Amino acid sequence: MLRGLKAGFSLNARLESDSDPVMWLGLCELRLMNDSRWPWLILIPQRPDIVEIHDLTPLDQAMLTFETNMVSQALKAVTGCTKINTGALGNIVRQLHVHVIARNEDDPGWPGPVWGHGVRQPYAPAEAHGFAEKLKAAL
Amino acid sequence: MLRGLKAGFSLNARLESDSDPVMWLGLCELRLMNDSRWPWLILIPQRPDIVEIHDLTPLDQAMLTFETNMVSQALKAVTGCTKINTGALGNIVRQLHVHVIARNEDDPGWPGPVWGHGVRQPYAPAEAHGFAEKLKAAL
Repeated sequence: MLRGLKAGFSLNARLESDSDPVMWLGLCELRLMNDSRWPWLILIPQRPDIVEIHDLTPLDQAMLTFETNMVSQALKAVTGCTKINTGALGNIVRQLHVHVIARNEDDPGWPGPVWGHGVRQPYAPAEAHGFAEKLKAAL
Repeated sequence: MLRGLKAGFSLNARLESDSDPVMWLGLCELRLMNDSRWPWLILIPQRPDIVEIHDLTPLDQAMLTFETNMVSQALKAVTGCTKINTGALGNIVRQLHVHVIARNEDDPGWPGPVWGHGVRQPYAPAEAHGFAEKLKAAL
C-alpha cells in the first residue's frame, strides 16, 4: 500500500484481518467486514494517529461525512435494507473507523446493535467478491 | 415547542420520555439521555420525516457533522473519558437521532456498545442538571 506508507498511515492489524478492501474513496479506504450475517462496510480515513472524528481537520470531517453518506446510500440501494446503522466506537480498535451496516427486521440481533453480537461468520470468497462488485457499481 | 411546531417537526415520544433537553444547537436539539450509567447525549435534527443521515440535504449533513463533533469534543473535555462512541442506529426509534456517549474502561458493558445493554438507571434530578450545566459551559 504505497499510498498508505507515503502518508505515514498504516492499517490496524485487526481491521486488516477482519475485513477485505473494496475501493479507495477520496479520504477513506472502504472495506467489507468479513461477516456474512450483515452487509457491513467500514471506512478508514487514511490519516495517521487519529482516534476520534473530532481529531480530524474540519475539511477531513466534511469529507468523511460525504463519503460515509455516499456509502450509506449505495448500501441501502443495493440491499434494500430496513435501516442503516452507522457508528464510530473504537473501544477495541482505536484507529478511527466508521461502520455502515445494512439492517433488517429478521437479521441476527435485531433490533440490537451488531457490535459484540455472537461470532463472526466469514463469507464464502466468491460471495464477498460479488457483493463488493455490486456495491462498487452503485457508488 | 413553538420552533418545532413551526417547522412541522415533532419530537418522537420515546426520545422525549427517555431524555431531557440541554440546549438548541443550529440544526439539532441537544438532549441528555436519562441514564446515569454513561454520560450520553443525543442530537436530533429539527427536520420532519428524516430517517437516515443521507436523507438530509448536503448542507444539513455538514451542519450535523459540525454539531456532532462540537458536542463530542465538549463531552470528552468535560468527562475526560477514554473514548467517544458515536452512532445513528434507529432500529427502534426511526426519527433520525445521533448518539454521542462518553465511555471508560470500567463502565457497564465496556468494551461493548451501550445500546440494548441492561436497564436504564435514571439520574437524580440535580445530578442531571449539574452535568448539563457543565456541558453547556464547555460548548
